[in-house]
Amino acid sequence: MDAMTTSGTHSLPTPALLADRERYPEGTIVDIGGVSVGGTEVVVIAGPCAVETRDQILKTAEVVRSEGARVLRGGAYKPRTAPYSFRGLEEAGLELLTLARSKTGLPIVTEVMDTKKIQQVCDHADALQIGSRNMHNYALLDEVGLTNKPVLLKRGMSATIQELLLSAEYILKQGNEQVVLCERGIRTFETSTRNTLDLSAVPMLKKLSHLPVVVDPSHAAGHWWMVPALAKAAVAVGADGLLIEVHCDPGCALSDGEQSLKPEHFKTMMAEVRSVARSVGREIAAPGTATRG
Amino acid sequence: MDAMTTSGTHSLPTPALLADRERYPEGTIVDIGGVSVGGTEVVVIAGPCAVETRDQILKTAEVVRSEGARVLRGGAYKPRTAPYSFRGLEEAGLELLTLARSKTGLPIVTEVMDTKKIQQVCDHADALQIGSRNMHNYALLDEVGLTNKPVLLKRGMSATIQELLLSAEYILKQGNEQVVLCERGIRTFETSTRNTLDLSAVPMLKKLSHLPVVVDPSHAAGHWWMVPALAKAAVAVGADGLLIEVHCDPGCALSDGEQSLKPEHFKTMMAEVRSVARSVGREIAAPGTATRG
Amino acid sequence: MDAMTTSGTHSLPTPALLADRERYPEGTIVDIGGVSVGGTEVVVIAGPCAVETRDQILKTAEVVRSEGARVLRGGAYKPRTAPYSFRGLEEAGLELLTLARSKTGLPIVTEVMDTKKIQQVCDHADALQIGSRNMHNYALLDEVGLTNKPVLLKRGMSATIQELLLSAEYILKQGNEQVVLCERGIRTFETSTRNTLDLSAVPMLKKLSHLPVVVDPSHAAGHWWMVPALAKAAVAVGADGLLIEVHCDPGCALSDGEQSLKPEHFKTMMAEVRSVARSVGREIAAPGTATRG
Amino acid sequence: MDAMTTSGTHSLPTPALLADRERYPEGTIVDIGGVSVGGTEVVVIAGPCAVETRDQILKTAEVVRSEGARVLRGGAYKPRTAPYSFRGLEEAGLELLTLARSKTGLPIVTEVMDTKKIQQVCDHADALQIGSRNMHNYALLDEVGLTNKPVLLKRGMSATIQELLLSAEYILKQGNEQVVLCERGIRTFETSTRNTLDLSAVPMLKKLSHLPVVVDPSHAAGHWWMVPALAKAAVAVGADGLLIEVHCDPGCALSDGEQSLKPEHFKTMMAEVRSVARSVGREIAAPGTATRG
Repeated sequence: MDAMTTSGTHSLPTPALLADRERYPEGTIVDIGGVSVGGTEVVVIAGPCAVETRDQILKTAEVVRSEGARVLRGGAYKPRTAPYSFRGLEEAGLELLTLARSKTGLPIVTEVMDTKKIQQVCDHADALQIGSRNMHNYALLDEVGLTNKPVLLKRGMSATIQELLLSAEYILKQGNEQVVLCERGIRTFETSTRNTLDLSAVPMLKKLSHLPVVVDPSHAAGHWWMVPALAKAAVAVGADGLLIEVHCDPGCALSDGEQSLKPEHFKTMMAEVRSVARSVGREIAAPGTATRG
Repeated sequence: MDAMTTSGTHSLPTPALLADRERYPEGTIVDIGGVSVGGTEVVVIAGPCAVETRDQILKTAEVVRSEGARVLRGGAYKPRTAPYSFRGLEEAGLELLTLARSKTGLPIVTEVMDTKKIQQVCDHADALQIGSRNMHNYALLDEVGLTNKPVLLKRGMSATIQELLLSAEYILKQGNEQVVLCERGIRTFETSTRNTLDLSAVPMLKKLSHLPVVVDPSHAAGHWWMVPALAKAAVAVGADGLLIEVHCDPGCALSDGEQSLKPEHFKTMMAEVRSVARSVGREIAAPGTATRG
Repeated sequence: MDAMTTSGTHSLPTPALLADRERYPEGTIVDIGGVSVGGTEVVVIAGPCAVETRDQILKTAEVVRSEGARVLRGGAYKPRTAPYSFRGLEEAGLELLTLARSKTGLPIVTEVMDTKKIQQVCDHADALQIGSRNMHNYALLDEVGLTNKPVLLKRGMSATIQELLLSAEYILKQGNEQVVLCERGIRTFETSTRNTLDLSAVPMLKKLSHLPVVVDPSHAAGHWWMVPALAKAAVAVGADGLLIEVHCDPGCALSDGEQSLKPEHFKTMMAEVRSVARSVGREIAAPGTATRG
Repeated sequence: MDAMTTSGTHSLPTPALLADRERYPEGTIVDIGGVSVGGTEVVVIAGPCAVETRDQILKTAEVVRSEGARVLRGGAYKPRTAPYSFRGLEEAGLELLTLARSKTGLPIVTEVMDTKKIQQVCDHADALQIGSRNMHNYALLDEVGLTNKPVLLKRGMSATIQELLLSAEYILKQGNEQVVLCERGIRTFETSTRNTLDLSAVPMLKKLSHLPVVVDPSHAAGHWWMVPALAKAAVAVGADGLLIEVHCDPGCALSDGEQSLKPEHFKTMMAEVRSVARSVGREIAAPGTATRG
């Protein structure tokens, strides 16, 4: 069956990589505005899918801070499948995130989609997010690799684990070693969930690489009621952090409302994941303990 | 885009089913030889992939019993992708399982693949396993539905959650309501694991159906070292049980050696999953407490 | 990245197989009731998804015969995802197929799903179909390998090409070398078609194996209007035959009506595929030339 | 089963789109440097994966022109999975393409990956290619929509047909209606081919949209010997053009050598696809007839 040999993506050569575990067997700790990702603490990064209004982001930031989230997330530039959907507040959104940081003390992570906007996003954010749709955008990876900001790199919706590591390599190779990998669900034939969360990616990535690994159960599930169960599983499997979508009024969210937790459900989830974290020798910040600005 | 409407598998009609959660909101408890699956206890079902020799099955059964497994698994009829692989000891394998039960008191679950062998397997086993490859074998489902044995129904390797429930429906419709569903990984593009374990299937199945749900991390991972992490995640996500492959000498196993845990790793894993179970309000039997025959 | 090595399905050992092209470099010709599959002629196998009534099968058989189909297809035992769907007329359906053969002279191919029914189906059919859902049903493959009937083996909905060849190997190993392989679409993330027809499977199977390869565009597409285009592509890519669903009144079909061609569309399609066949040095029987019984 | 409803990608709202077939029922013809794509002619776009040297591109351009190709392809900016692979000659590559155009008269299509390079690529190319990895790069789509160059938009490796049309919509919405869609294989579980060519996408896209559709069998197959069979199938299924990788010395190619045709095989393929084109009422330029500069 020699005819079946292929040089395709399933059999890439695997040279030694800067991302390899062997380089830093003890693991890399990434610093996001003073919060360490990759240590004993499981870091919760929470907030709305998109920054919508001043009230929305300030209120949500305060809610997630008070329950133990350590980093605020929120999109100012939103990649949307259709060009007619809400695409984010852009620079005004970045300024609202900065305001929320000044009120709560939470560092902020937000997405950058265009090489032309990297400087602008760097001027506001503590960490740059590369979304799933841009994991293969090598021009963007090259340039965020030249910044001094930590990068949260999300797995492409049909990227293999090896391809995710090779995309991280683009950033590392430019000299920026502050990369956090993020599993957020892959595209499969299953339609009852938005994506299929691949939790086996966590131990595989931890074995292969020294980079921290976080999990985004919200985008994977597509159903808010499923997020707490998946968050617990992510902590049990060894994730270094969680990305959780929270919205004070999900029914009115301009994007992804169906998968966003209300504050009361976020509170319940935090208590549950804290218990699981302890059972595997990790910890999650207690309510009200995060720094206030 | 009306042309995109299809009557295909992605949009099946969904009438009320016997498997629906609404029928038994409190959930069904399935009794496997005196062990309850679906209650507070997370039941560990462990053993070798295939029954190979008298010594092998007796030794393994004693090891898993002593660490807290409650049910013994082992294949006498093995579905193999290639016809030249070891296909199981057949009736002799069933007799060795019966012997292992008499020595350890563990009830046994084993696979049946052919309608002609159902009576024979029923004569020995406490529960019948329908493997992934036969989830769509409706002739087989019809007939196990006529037996009085509980059925462990594994999800097909590319079956949707809805299709798994509809296969369960074949069994329930015949009058046999003792069905346990099993998530064991689905086929995706990812090649670093044997299958992609879909843990979101657990909360989805629990929401949709009253049937208990167990998880098989061994077949999903294909790597023994990944099994404990996935087992912890499965417990955290809400599984009612675990299927774990254990082999005293994996390097010599006639099938699936690479994904089988050695006794010392099984022991460590059991301590870890016990801790996670407690963190989510469940329990796993302590070492040495399982009934001895 | 040694951790990524797996013994899973993506890297099966590949010993010499009875199905290998090297064994019969010139290719095997399978005889279905006097019709040769695997030669210069592209054989059209057509008929309804399921046998429903005497009038339906006799009328459809006459229509497809008169347009150049050489074999009649129709299901008497139907595998259905849900147990509440129409599951076929069973033995009465086999008898109606036999009657249709006696009226038209067309040999018949029909599905067998249970080892207990093989003898009954053999008593009526010229060729046995193993459906996608049973490609991994090794008990069934073993037993059809012991019959003297040609077998039409459909690719499982998520089976690799290698797994399809290994399932054929089960049949060949028992001594039955009259196996026709069938590509019928695989399960992917795409939802606008029922399955994704993998036409690259045809040249790959022809390169690897000496067995004839036919294509079923009806099940793959799930839309009748797409069937002619895919049928032309199948002939152009090198298929030895086509399986086409035809129904005189698709709106009333008990299964798969949406993907069935009406007689007038079947007629148009036959003219088109005949033209493509000639352009690649093959031929398709002219209208009205098939044997009448 | 209301719990299974999701707002995810599988059930996007489908408003009227600029890409909809209803807007131009007769279909759009896109002009690439004087060559019409979308009319009766099936346009062959051929050349190397990457521009490597002056001799390589000039020689290949002359070979493909003489056999009937109408447009020259070649990459100056190459997206590569690993950052250590050859990434293209960049501006020097664009200049060599321009030289090849002046020698052969063939218009050129080449990839653009970064918003910062769009002007540069526009200065040289007759059409801009958006590669699979950038189909979801909305910043890039927005900006190529503001140019006056035709755009060849390749389907993302796991993009649905609906998502491909929505990415085209980004370009159309900016005022650039010269968009050609390209099917190039999707990512599935099958490993014997690099990707799975989804030829059903062609009739589906033609039914839904007025935009021309071309097929790239080279990237889909990953094996040069399979390209002619898939090219014939693509023409039979209704494609408006073909993208074919040709290299004079594939063994020495800096990328994708294994899937590139040698000149003699390209010549044979052109004769074969010409015959299939005629059988479906289309035509392909005869050898030596393409314009020379």
